Amino acid sequence: MSHVHRDDSSSSVNAEAAAGKALDSEDVTIAYVGGGSRQWVPNLVQDLALSSFDGEVRLYDVNVEAAERNAEFGNRVQDDEDATAEWTYTATGDLDAALDGADVVLLSTQYDPTETFVHDLDIPESYGIYGAVSATIGPGGIFRAMRTIPLYRRFAAAIREHCPDAWVFNFTNPVHFVTRALYDEYPGINAVGMCHEVLHARDKLAAFANDHLGMDADRADVSANVKGINHFTWIDEAYVDGVDLWPLLDDLAHGEEGTRTYEPADLEDGSPFTDPWQVSWELYRNFGLLPFAGDRHIVEYATWFLQGGKEGLNRWGVKRTGSDFRAKHWTPAESEQTTDVEAWLSGDRAFDLESSGEVLLDVLGALAGGEEFVTNVNLPNRGQVEGLESGAVVETNALVSASEIRPLSAGGFPRPVRSLLSTHVDTIETVVAAARDGDVDHAFQAFLLDPQVRTLQTEDAREMFAELVDSQEAYLDDWALDDADVLAAADSY
Amino acid sequence: MSHVHRDDSSSSVNAEAAAGKALDSEDVTIAYVGGGSRQWVPNLVQDLALSSFDGEVRLYDVNVEAAERNAEFGNRVQDDEDATAEWTYTATGDLDAALDGADVVLLSTQYDPTETFVHDLDIPESYGIYGAVSATIGPGGIFRAMRTIPLYRRFAAAIREHCPDAWVFNFTNPVHFVTRALYDEYPGINAVGMCHEVLHARDKLAAFANDHLGMDADRADVSANVKGINHFTWIDEAYVDGVDLWPLLDDLAHGEEGTRTYEPADLEDGSPFTDPWQVSWELYRNFGLLPFAGDRHIVEYATWFLQGGKEGLNRWGVKRTGSDFRAKHWTPAESEQTTDVEAWLSGDRAFDLESSGEVLLDVLGALAGGEEFVTNVNLPNRGQVEGLESGAVVETNALVSASEIRPLSAGGFPRPVRSLLSTHVDTIETVVAAARDGDVDHAFQAFLLDPQVRTLQTEDAREMFAELVDSQEAYLDDWALDDADVLAAADSY
Amino acid sequence: MSHVHRDDSSSSVNAEAAAGKALDSEDVTIAYVGGGSRQWVPNLVQDLALSSFDGEVRLYDVNVEAAERNAEFGNRVQDDEDATAEWTYTATGDLDAALDGADVVLLSTQYDPTETFVHDLDIPESYGIYGAVSATIGPGGIFRAMRTIPLYRRFAAAIREHCPDAWVFNFTNPVHFVTRALYDEYPGINAVGMCHEVLHARDKLAAFANDHLGMDADRADVSANVKGINHFTWIDEAYVDGVDLWPLLDDLAHGEEGTRTYEPADLEDGSPFTDPWQVSWELYRNFGLLPFAGDRHIVEYATWFLQGGKEGLNRWGVKRTGSDFRAKHWTPAESEQTTDVEAWLSGDRAFDLESSGEVLLDVLGALAGGEEFVTNVNLPNRGQVEGLESGAVVETNALVSASEIRPLSAGGFPRPVRSLLSTHVDTIETVVAAARDGDVDHAFQAFLLDPQVRTLQTEDAREMFAELVDSQEAYLDDWALDDADVLAAADSY
Amino acid sequence: MSHVHRDDSSSSVNAEAAAGKALDSEDVTIAYVGGGSRQWVPNLVQDLALSSFDGEVRLYDVNVEAAERNAEFGNRVQDDEDATAEWTYTATGDLDAALDGADVVLLSTQYDPTETFVHDLDIPESYGIYGAVSATIGPGGIFRAMRTIPLYRRFAAAIREHCPDAWVFNFTNPVHFVTRALYDEYPGINAVGMCHEVLHARDKLAAFANDHLGMDADRADVSANVKGINHFTWIDEAYVDGVDLWPLLDDLAHGEEGTRTYEPADLEDGSPFTDPWQVSWELYRNFGLLPFAGDRHIVEYATWFLQGGKEGLNRWGVKRTGSDFRAKHWTPAESEQTTDVEAWLSGDRAFDLESSGEVLLDVLGALAGGEEFVTNVNLPNRGQVEGLESGAVVETNALVSASEIRPLSAGGFPRPVRSLLSTHVDTIETVVAAARDGDVDHAFQAFLLDPQVRTLQTEDAREMFAELVDSQEAYLDDWALDDADVLAAADSY
Repeated sequence: MSHVHRDDSSSSVNAEAAAGKALDSEDVTIAYVGGGSRQWVPNLVQDLALSSFDGEVRLYDVNVEAAERNAEFGNRVQDDEDATAEWTYTATGDLDAALDGADVVLLSTQYDPTETFVHDLDIPESYGIYGAVSATIGPGGIFRAMRTIPLYRRFAAAIREHCPDAWVFNFTNPVHFVTRALYDEYPGINAVGMCHEVLHARDKLAAFANDHLGMDADRADVSANVKGINHFTWIDEAYVDGVDLWPLLDDLAHGEEGTRTYEPADLEDGSPFTDPWQVSWELYRNFGLLPFAGDRHIVEYATWFLQGGKEGLNRWGVKRTGSDFRAKHWTPAESEQTTDVEAWLSGDRAFDLESSGEVLLDVLGALAGGEEFVTNVNLPNRGQVEGLESGAVVETNALVSASEIRPLSAGGFPRPVRSLLSTHVDTIETVVAAARDGDVDHAFQAFLLDPQVRTLQTEDAREMFAELVDSQEAYLDDWALDDADVLAAADSY
Repeated sequence: MSHVHRDDSSSSVNAEAAAGKALDSEDVTIAYVGGGSRQWVPNLVQDLALSSFDGEVRLYDVNVEAAERNAEFGNRVQDDEDATAEWTYTATGDLDAALDGADVVLLSTQYDPTETFVHDLDIPESYGIYGAVSATIGPGGIFRAMRTIPLYRRFAAAIREHCPDAWVFNFTNPVHFVTRALYDEYPGINAVGMCHEVLHARDKLAAFANDHLGMDADRADVSANVKGINHFTWIDEAYVDGVDLWPLLDDLAHGEEGTRTYEPADLEDGSPFTDPWQVSWELYRNFGLLPFAGDRHIVEYATWFLQGGKEGLNRWGVKRTGSDFRAKHWTPAESEQTTDVEAWLSGDRAFDLESSGEVLLDVLGALAGGEEFVTNVNLPNRGQVEGLESGAVVETNALVSASEIRPLSAGGFPRPVRSLLSTHVDTIETVVAAARDGDVDHAFQAFLLDPQVRTLQTEDAREMFAELVDSQEAYLDDWALDDADVLAAADSY
Repeated sequence: MSHVHRDDSSSSVNAEAAAGKALDSEDVTIAYVGGGSRQWVPNLVQDLALSSFDGEVRLYDVNVEAAERNAEFGNRVQDDEDATAEWTYTATGDLDAALDGADVVLLSTQYDPTETFVHDLDIPESYGIYGAVSATIGPGGIFRAMRTIPLYRRFAAAIREHCPDAWVFNFTNPVHFVTRALYDEYPGINAVGMCHEVLHARDKLAAFANDHLGMDADRADVSANVKGINHFTWIDEAYVDGVDLWPLLDDLAHGEEGTRTYEPADLEDGSPFTDPWQVSWELYRNFGLLPFAGDRHIVEYATWFLQGGKEGLNRWGVKRTGSDFRAKHWTPAESEQTTDVEAWLSGDRAFDLESSGEVLLDVLGALAGGEEFVTNVNLPNRGQVEGLESGAVVETNALVSASEIRPLSAGGFPRPVRSLLSTHVDTIETVVAAARDGDVDHAFQAFLLDPQVRTLQTEDAREMFAELVDSQEAYLDDWALDDADVLAAADSY
Repeated sequence: MSHVHRDDSSSSVNAEAAAGKALDSEDVTIAYVGGGSRQWVPNLVQDLALSSFDGEVRLYDVNVEAAERNAEFGNRVQDDEDATAEWTYTATGDLDAALDGADVVLLSTQYDPTETFVHDLDIPESYGIYGAVSATIGPGGIFRAMRTIPLYRRFAAAIREHCPDAWVFNFTNPVHFVTRALYDEYPGINAVGMCHEVLHARDKLAAFANDHLGMDADRADVSANVKGINHFTWIDEAYVDGVDLWPLLDDLAHGEEGTRTYEPADLEDGSPFTDPWQVSWELYRNFGLLPFAGDRHIVEYATWFLQGGKEGLNRWGVKRTGSDFRAKHWTPAESEQTTDVEAWLSGDRAFDLESSGEVLLDVLGALAGGEEFVTNVNLPNRGQVEGLESGAVVETNALVSASEIRPLSAGGFPRPVRSLLSTHVDTIETVVAAARDGDVDHAFQAFLLDPQVRTLQTEDAREMFAELVDSQEAYLDDWALDDADVLAAADSY
C-alpha cells in the first residue's frame, strides 16, 4: 500500500524497502525462481514442513524436470510424521505463472561454472590477478554481474507485472549488484538481499566468548553493529549476552590469535572454507574496525592481500577456491549424479526430516506475525549507513516484524574505511547503470575502477576485458558488444 | 570506548549516540538532576524498588530540602515487603558530587511558571497569537529554550568532567532544543531525549484496534514507524499485533471519527488533555501521513490550526492550557502544599508500592542486559530520518539492548511534510547556535522564522520579543542583552 | 554535444545548463513564442537591427495577425539608415515550424489578465491576504504557475523534438516555476530564466555610489554577489568600480535612508513601481544580507510585510498593483487600441531606431563570440548556490561567453535566510511535481505550505483554493479536477 | 568584513574564500614567505616594477642573507628606466614582522631535496613503485605533505594573528594538501592555491587550434571548463576564440596525434618536461573527459600508467624526474653557485627588465581594481565542483575582480572520474586531519588508501612507511613518532 506522494527529493530510490505485504500465515504462496536447485530447495522443503505456517510453493526452473523432482519430494515430505505445516508443491517452466499473485519470491539461480566462473578465475590469473573467490567483485565478479543483471532485470519486470507487492528474497551473487539491479528496474520492489557471511562471523564471536570468557553463547546471543556492503561488512560494536566483546577482540587482534602467519604448504590439504581471520585482524589493527565476513571475500575488496599472488594470499591463511574447485563442486540441476533428493525419492536413502537452520524461515515467520528478531539484510541505503550513497545497496542489521523489515541505523565509518567502500559502490552503480542500455564501454569504466584491475596498465585491462567477453559471449547477449569501442580497440577480441 | 578515528566528514555531530556505558545490574549509580521533584522522583523510587537491578540514587536539587525529603522517602520504600531490589538514596546540593562517576544521569528541572510560562502564553496572546501550549515551539517555546539551554550546557560540561560515559536521559522541555544543546556543548555525550507523547498515541491506536477490529491490544502490541521531531512526530505505517492498521485509519479519517467539529462551549468544562485527534485526522487527509503526538502540541508546529484565536483552535477540539492553568497546576518543590510523599512519610496516607508504567525502567533494564525492546527516543540524526539535517535531534523508534540504543531507520517524508519539519529544525538549530555566545540578535532571527511569529509584522515581532525579554530577564542572564540591536530598536524594552 | 556519460549520481537534473549551441553570428535563427507581443517584439526588432549579427526571426503566436503585424514592422525597420545588421521576419501560427532548427528560442506569453490575474488578486484578498503583486508566489502566483506549467511542458517537448540544442530564454513568470518545469519535461534543454529585477537593483546601487560617494557609476560598474531564487534574491557583497559598497549600505540601512515610514495616503497617487527599498533595509537590519529585487516582489516571499493588509504593506512604501491596475495596463495582442507599431506602420508616428537597453542582446552577442560579460540568470542549481537543493532553479550571476553561460559560485546563506528560501523551493518543486500528472491534491499541499496561506485555517485555505479553481477552470484543463479530494471537500467549488 | 552569521550548516568550511581585502593600488604591502628564492623573487621584482600599482615587499626567509640579496636587487631594479611602478624591498628573518598588516602574503618555500625528495623517490622505487614525480601524491607526495603541513599550519596561525584579512597565495606543493591545511588551521583565511599546469595545458590547446584549424591563438584565447584537484584536473568543454574545440580534440585522440607509443630509448636524452599527452588522450578515450595537467602529474593519480615500472611509464612518453635530477636541478638559497641576481648585482651580467608572464600579477591587478579576468585557482569547494566534498580544496576557473576571486560553477563528473578523484580527496583530508594532533597511525591509513601503495601488501606498505620516516625524521618532528603503532610494528624503523 502506498500511503504517500512519492516525490521525496531526498531519496534517489523511491522504494520504501521496509514495509510490505502482510503474510497470511495460513496461506502463503511462494514462487521459487531456480526451483530445480538440488540443495536449497530440499532445505527449504524441510524448513517449511517444520514451520508454523501453511501454503503453496511453485518451483520455477528452465530445467522443468529438476523442478518436478523437487516438487515430488516436497509433496512427499508432507507425509512425514514430524511435519507440522501443510504445503503443496508444483513445478513449472512458465515464469509468469509461477509469479502470478505470489506473496513471496525466492531468487536463486546459477549459470554453468565451467562456462563462466572458470574464466572469471583463470583469465585474470593469466594477467597476474590472483583473486581468492572472484565471484562478487574484481574482474570475475564484475563479469558475473554483467551476465546476471540483465536476467534479474527481467525478473524484476515480471514481478512488477505479476506480484508487485511480494516480498522478494535474493540469494544470487553478486548480491549487491543483483539486488541493486532489481531496484533499478522496479523501484517499488520489496527486495531483500540475503547472505550467510555475517551469520558465520557471529558464530565466530560466540566461539571467542566461549573460549576466552567462559560463556556459553551461540550465534543468537551475539549482537554486532554490522555495516557496509555485502561481503565487505564491518562492525564497530559487539556484545555477547550484553557483555562488551571489544576489549577481548582488541586483545586477540594483538595477541597470538591475531598474528599468525601461513606458508602455502600449510594450506595445501585444507579446505578453502577454513577461515583463520588473519586478514580481519590485520585490517582491525590498521583501521580500528573489524571486517565481518569471510577473509576470502574481504581480500577481494581490500586488495592489499591479493598482492604477491598465491604466496601473498596464503600468508594470511586464505586459500583460493580455484577454477578446478569450482567446476568440481557444482552440481548442475541436470546432472546425472545421484542427489539426496533422488536417493530419498527412490528409497535408496532413509529420510530424516530436519531443520536447516536457515534464517529465511525466521524472517518469513516474523513477517507473518511471529516473533520479531534482528538479522542482517541487504537493502537500498535510506540512511541506515551514514556517508554511503543513498540508494546504494548496503548491508546492516534490520528488525524483522509483521510486514516489516526495518534497518537499524548503523552510523558511519571513519573516512579511510568509507573511502574503501565508496570505490566499490561506484563500481557497482556504474555496472548497473551501464546494463540499462547494454553499454559495454560504460561497463569497462567500472572495470578500470576496480582496485584489482588498477594493478594493470589500461591496455592490459582492455585485453583482459576482451578475453573475458570472448570466453563467455553466450551469456552476454544483452550487451551491445558490436558497438563497444573497448572491444574494437583490443587485440584479443 | 572510542574505537575509531572521529574525522568522519559525513557527520556534523561526532557522537555515536547509540552505544555507551555498560550497566552493571547489581550496582547502578543514578544522578537525578532536579531530585526535589514531587511527582517524578516518587514514581522512580517505586519503579526502582520493583526492578531487577540494584544501586544508588543521588538526588541533586538547588532546593536541597526537597531532595532530602525524597531521599528519605526513597530509603523508606526499600523496607516495603514488595520491594525486589535494593537502592539507597542520598540528597545533595552539589552538582559535581552528584555526577561524579554516575552511570546514569536523569535531567528533569523546571523554573517557576508564574515568572516564566505565564509570560510565554500571555504576551504572545496580546499580539494575537493564541498558542495551545506555548511550551516547546512558537514564541513561548523559543523563550523557554532560551532560558533553559544555558543551564543545560553547564550540565553537559559537568557531565563531560565527572561522568563522560554516563547514559543521560533528558525529560526537560523543549526536548529537541535541550537535547540538541547537550550535544552542542559536549558532542561525546550519550544523551537521549525522552517523551510520553508517542506512547499515548500508541495507546490510541490500540484503542482503535480494540473498538473497530475487535482486538484486545494495548500499547505494547502497537508498532508504528515514528519519525519527526519531538512533539511533531508522524507515522506512515502502523501495525497492531501484525495487522496493518492503515485501512482502518484511512476509514476513520474520512468517517465520523475523523470529521467532528467543536464549539468553544463544548470544551468549556473539559480537560485540556482530552484529545479528539481532529487536527491529526485533518493533517492526514491533507498530507497522507498521520501526526503522532497530542493535537495540542501538533498545532504549535502546524500553525494553520492556531489561526482565528480561541474559536479557531477549539473548532478542532483542542483546549488551551492557559497561563492560569499553568500557574495552578504546578507544584513547586518548595511548595507548602502537602504532597503524596509528605503524606506517606508522615503516615497520613497509606503507602502502596506500585509501578508507574514509565518506559525509563524498561530502558534501564534493557541497557543492563535485560529484555530488548523498541521505543521512541530523541537523538541526533545520523540517518534514521532521511532528508532531515544530520545532527538535528529527531525522534524515531530505537531498539534498546545491552549498552545500546540504536535508532531504527525510519525513511523520509513527502516533501511538503519535510518542509514543515525543516523550518522548525532551522529555528532550533539557530537558537542553539545563538546560545553559544549569547547572541540575542541571532536568536531573534530564529524567532522571526517561527510560523506563529510570521503572522506579525517584523516591528511587532520585535516588540513582542522585547516584552518577553523584559518579563523574564532574571532567567536570561547568559544572554548578551546589552549588545542586542533588536532590543535597542524596540520601544517596549 | 554530449561528451560524457550522464549517470552522475550527484545531480538530480541531468542538464549541463552551461554550455550549448554555438551561434554563427552571420546566421542566427530565432523563434519567438508569443511573437504577437506589442512591447517586447518591437524592442527586440530594434535591438537586433542595431546589433552586430544577422539572421532570421520567426514570430509564433496563437494570434497570427498580431505576429504578422510585428513581422511587417520588423522587416520595415531593416530599411532604417541606422540599421547595422540584417534580419528577416516571418509570422506563423505553427509552433513546430517556428521551432524547426532554431538556434535561439524566446518564450514570452501571457493569458488574459481579466480572466486570470484579477482572480489571483481578488479571491485571496477576500480571505484577508493582501498580496502586493500576487504573480510569482503566494496563492495567486501558485495559480499562475498551475495555469502556465502545462503549456510550457508542451513547449519543452516541442523544443526537444525540433531544436534540442537551441538556447532557450524564458521571460514568462513565475520564472522559477516555469524554468524549472522546462527542465522537468526535458532535462537536456538549454533554458535560462531571465528577469529585470536584479538589473534595477544594480541601478540603485550605482545611484547610491553616485549620491553618497561622489562616483559617476552606472549599472555596468556595479558588481554584486547575487543569489537566491527569482524575485527573492539577496546580495552579501557589492562593489562599484572596485569600491566596497558595504560600509555605505550599512550606514544607509541604519540612517534616514533606511528608516522611512509611510502612510497609505503617501502612496495614493504614486506609481506602484516607485521603490523606496524600506523592506530591503529592514531585512538587512534583521538578517545581515540585502534583498536584491523590488520590495513589491520581496514581500510576497518575506511575508511579515503583508500582515495587517493595506496599511501594513503601505507602511513600507509598497503600493499594491491591484486587479484594476492589472486589467487596465495590459494591452492584449488583439486589442483594438492603436499601438506604437501600428502608428509607425501607418506613418502616424515618426520612427526613431533606438536600443532598448535589454540585456538579452548582450547575451546573444557574447554567445556568438562577442564580448564576455557577467549578468544574472536563472538556472538549475548545480552548486552555484550552496545549501539550496540541487536541481532547483536558482538565480545567480553567470559569465556569458562564446557558447557558454556559466554561473559564478555564489556561496551559501546564513541558516535563517536559507530557511526562508527553502520553503519556497519546496512549494515550487511540489507544484512542478504535481503538474506531471495533474494531481490537484498534490498541488494543494504546495498551496498549504505557502506562508501567505498559512495565515488561514486549512478549511479556509481549501475554500480559497476551490474558488480560485472555479474562477479560472478554463485555464486548468490539464489538471485532473474531477479526481481532486480537495475540491470535493470544499463547499465553494 | 564579516557581514553574516557564520553558522551556515551547509558548509564544513566557514570561509567565504571568495571576497576579501580591498587592495589600494597605490600602497600594497606584500609579505613574501620564502623570500630568499633565487628564481621566484627576481621574477616578481620585475613584474612589480612593470605593474601599475605601488607598494612594499617584505622578504622573509630563514636564510636572511639570501633575502637581503633579493631585497638589494629589488630596490636596484626600481632605478631601471622601464620601471613603471614604485616598490621598496626589505629583508627579514622575523615572520611576525614580515606579516604584520600585510595586504598580500606569498607562500613559496622548499626543503633541501637531497634530504627529502630523494628519499620520496628512491624508497618507494625499492618497493617497486616507480612514480613519475612523487611530489604531490603517492607515497612521496604524502610524505612531502607530512613534512610541510605542520609548518604551514604555523604560517596560517601567524597570518590569523598579524594580517587576518590578507590575500594569501600559496605556491608550495603539494598545493591541495597545503592549501587545505591553511584553511584547517584558520578557516577565515583568504588563501588561494596557485599552479602553472593548467596554463600550460591551455597553451597546448592554443597550439592545436593554430596547427589544425589555422587559427592564431594563444593561451588567453582559450576557454576551458577546468575542474578537479590540483595536478588531477579535467576539462569537458574547450573553446578557442569562441570555436568549440571538442570535435578537433576527439579527432586528435583517435588519430596519430593521440596514439603514439614510446620506448625507453626514445626518451633517453629528452627532457622530462616534454609532454606528448599520450596519457591524457588514453584517459579521454576511456572516460570521455580530457585531463588538463601534465601527464607526469596525471599518472601519479591515475595509476594504471605507473604499472610495469620504467617501461610501463615510458611507453606513454613520460620520463621520470628521478632523484638525481631533483638533486641536480635544485638551487638552494644558500648555494655558492652564482645566480642571475648576483650576476646582475655585481655587474657581471647586463640586466634587461622584462615581464615573466606570471599570472599572479594579473590577479593582483584585478584585485586592486584593474581588468577582470578568468584563471584557474585552488579553493575550498563551496559548490564549484559538484559531487566532490564540500570544503575539499578543488581547482576550477575563477573570475578575478576587485576584492574578489569567485569560482565559476564547473558542474560535476561522470561517476567513474568522480570516484578516481574522491579517493585522493580522502587521502588528502585524512592526512590533514592526522596532522592536527600528529597522529602517525592516522596518517598511515591515508598512506594505505593511496592507489600506488595498494599494489603492496599491508606489511610491505608498513615497512616502506617506516623507512620513509626513518630517512627524514628531522623534518617530521611535529609528528608523535614515539606513539605510532605502525612504526613499532615495522622492522625497518
